[in-house]
Amino acid sequence: MSKKKNAFYAQSGGVTAVINASACGVIETARKNKDKIGKVYAGRNGIIGALTEDLIDTSKESARDIAALRHTPSGGFGSCRFKLKSLEENKREYERLIDVFEAHNIGYFFYNGGGDSADTCLKVSQLSKSMGYPIQAIHVPKTVDNDLPITDNCPGFGSVAKYIALSTLEASFDVASMCATSTKVFVLEVMGRHAGWIAAAGAMASDENIDLPIIVLFPEVKFAKTKFLKAVKEKVQKYGYCSVVVSEGAHWPDGRFLAEQGTRDAFGHAQLGGAAPVVANMIHEALGYKYHWAVADYLQRAARHIASKTDVEQAYAMGKAAVEFALAGKNSVMPTIKRTSNAPYKWTIGSANLSRVANVEKMMPASFISKDGFGITKRCRTYMEPLMRGEDYPPYHKSGMPKYVQLKKVPVTQKLKPFKI
Amino acid sequence: MSKKKNAFYAQSGGVTAVINASACGVIETARKNKDKIGKVYAGRNGIIGALTEDLIDTSKESARDIAALRHTPSGGFGSCRFKLKSLEENKREYERLIDVFEAHNIGYFFYNGGGDSADTCLKVSQLSKSMGYPIQAIHVPKTVDNDLPITDNCPGFGSVAKYIALSTLEASFDVASMCATSTKVFVLEVMGRHAGWIAAAGAMASDENIDLPIIVLFPEVKFAKTKFLKAVKEKVQKYGYCSVVVSEGAHWPDGRFLAEQGTRDAFGHAQLGGAAPVVANMIHEALGYKYHWAVADYLQRAARHIASKTDVEQAYAMGKAAVEFALAGKNSVMPTIKRTSNAPYKWTIGSANLSRVANVEKMMPASFISKDGFGITKRCRTYMEPLMRGEDYPPYHKSGMPKYVQLKKVPVTQKLKPFKI
Repeated sequence: MSKKKNAFYAQSGGVTAVINASACGVIETARKNKDKIGKVYAGRNGIIGALTEDLIDTSKESARDIAALRHTPSGGFGSCRFKLKSLEENKREYERLIDVFEAHNIGYFFYNGGGDSADTCLKVSQLSKSMGYPIQAIHVPKTVDNDLPITDNCPGFGSVAKYIALSTLEASFDVASMCATSTKVFVLEVMGRHAGWIAAAGAMASDENIDLPIIVLFPEVKFAKTKFLKAVKEKVQKYGYCSVVVSEGAHWPDGRFLAEQGTRDAFGHAQLGGAAPVVANMIHEALGYKYHWAVADYLQRAARHIASKTDVEQAYAMGKAAVEFALAGKNSVMPTIKRTSNAPYKWTIGSANLSRVANVEKMMPASFISKDGFGITKRCRTYMEPLMRGEDYPPYHKSGMPKYVQLKKVPVTQKLKPFKI
Repeated sequence: MSKKKNAFYAQSGGVTAVINASACGVIETARKNKDKIGKVYAGRNGIIGALTEDLIDTSKESARDIAALRHTPSGGFGSCRFKLKSLEENKREYERLIDVFEAHNIGYFFYNGGGDSADTCLKVSQLSKSMGYPIQAIHVPKTVDNDLPITDNCPGFGSVAKYIALSTLEASFDVASMCATSTKVFVLEVMGRHAGWIAAAGAMASDENIDLPIIVLFPEVKFAKTKFLKAVKEKVQKYGYCSVVVSEGAHWPDGRFLAEQGTRDAFGHAQLGGAAPVVANMIHEALGYKYHWAVADYLQRAARHIASKTDVEQAYAMGKAAVEFALAGKNSVMPTIKRTSNAPYKWTIGSANLSRVANVEKMMPASFISKDGFGITKRCRTYMEPLMRGEDYPPYHKSGMPKYVQLKKVPVTQKLKPFKI
């Protein structure tokens, strides 16, 4: 077996418009360093691909297809919601990981995900110490929720923010046209279980260029029905209409979500959806306004067609930096985005120890939410605006559809016995 | 009073991503013919602006702002849902219209809307005969529903179709990434009460470039639950996941909509919304698949950021043609889009008598829906593809938000007594 180690790369958790741009950064940078790094094997469906020895040989993908990942949304290699238990609880899985890494000469582990995934990456990074297997594990940050600590922002967030701000702007223009005789209130439900970053983006639709009546319902602020209805009424009286951006995580003072479906995902998080119709009906019942509501759901995090240029560049840069960190001998770290200046916006690449990242959720600072609890402050605007900046359009077919790539995903020949998760 | 007559322009019904492009076509063409046509007065909030003598003097808007209408979604002058009753039922309103037209020397009436609006335009066009007031009324076609007769397609449809096809593509990529361990079914609810044109656009996401498992629920096809669930199961078994595009007008065999909210709009149409969660829950209960659902609502018809180039060009051309028709002495007509060739796609401008347009709803041809009732035929693709072709991006601010225009909307001095509708 050669001394040159292969790399493992996998995508984890909810995908984004730009996680593939990070994959592109990892693979293109590894290809540029063929003297130091072997093949990049991608896990089919995240860490599950490692456990089941279901590896994809990315060397079989053309340079053109790998480059196209940069403008393709979703997780090109498949993602998963699966969190490794602790070494004490499930030693079997760690032993299996080592078997697979050993069988395929894997010395680098790149894991592209959010807070839960950083925890998995941390556990893998400790295999050298805990199980005697030499591996360097680097976490590549990704989450639309923007809730990873230390890094100034997370790749994936800028694009979802741009999509939500833009959609709120466009829908507000629509309802403004109709409000004299028809719809007066538009309610848009957005993602963000615990942190209101995405909801805050709705407020970015109203700025120094265009003044719009927007009310945001944050997960950070306990829902106050009377105060909310009063605010809606005031906006409608002043502007003729009102747009409400409600986070899926908005909740009553007793902690119940405005809309809880009662089901839970693999991480045990409540699966939400349906806050928009609840809020719309509440307004209609109390104030009699005609309403429309929308639930953006996957559309918001898959909207590569209107991705932010800043976001695409940073997602790529994080993938590239992860490989460079590995080649520099680092382990158990995550590249971060360090903001060095607001005007002009400037950023560089930093580094965070995974022990400080795993399972830590960064909330919106209280100073980002306006005093009435329904909007954002200037400080929040200063933070968010550069992240949404610039358009990075994908190329299009003549038919009017974007040229998103579906990879060949050629499997690596298996060498081990099957493993049951 | 000068011999040169002024024009009245108004927007009616649900707005679209490109109705302002038609407004731009009307106003710019009128400005180019200042020797023959006076000012263009826009009705604030559609025909209501005419009845209440609430006119906007478009000559006060800069050439730059009028040009910006071409890339701004929604109805820049305000729209309305208001249908004139028959002359016999409400002579008072017609007399008022004539008073307003006379007071402001209006000889041209441009009405930009769908089937209900064509009926209003037809009634106005008959004022010469019925009430002795000389006016030329031209209808400018607009509707996301694509349900106007005679014209090959309606401005507004191509852009909503592009948005729905693109959103279905992006969300399908997302669910494909997640399906191994999480979401297996994504349901997107789209507009279209009686005609399945918009729902059909969802099926356009799967084409010769990319094969996706998409099931469409059309309003033209009675919902067959058992057959539908079987189709979903088959797609999930084959692809690992499935996307469902459900029209708000999808209904049970007895005629009940899959989701009816029980309220009605000003035209008496049932106000819908919520078919997506109904379908998603149905799948979960029967097959146990984890699901996500989205309701696009206003986002789809306001999505100027990803408007189809064909659509923008045609919307502008319809506004331009309407003024040219008026200057050529026509009355009671609507410019139409005539397709003269599929490959390459070519179209010219035709003309339809309003008596043949008003209150006539064009359904999807049966030959456009696949045999199983869940998809579209090649014939449908050939029809739809050129309408979605090309990207017509708006300009953007440095902040990452599009430069949509809010007009000054300077009111014309009122000359008459107030009028109560």
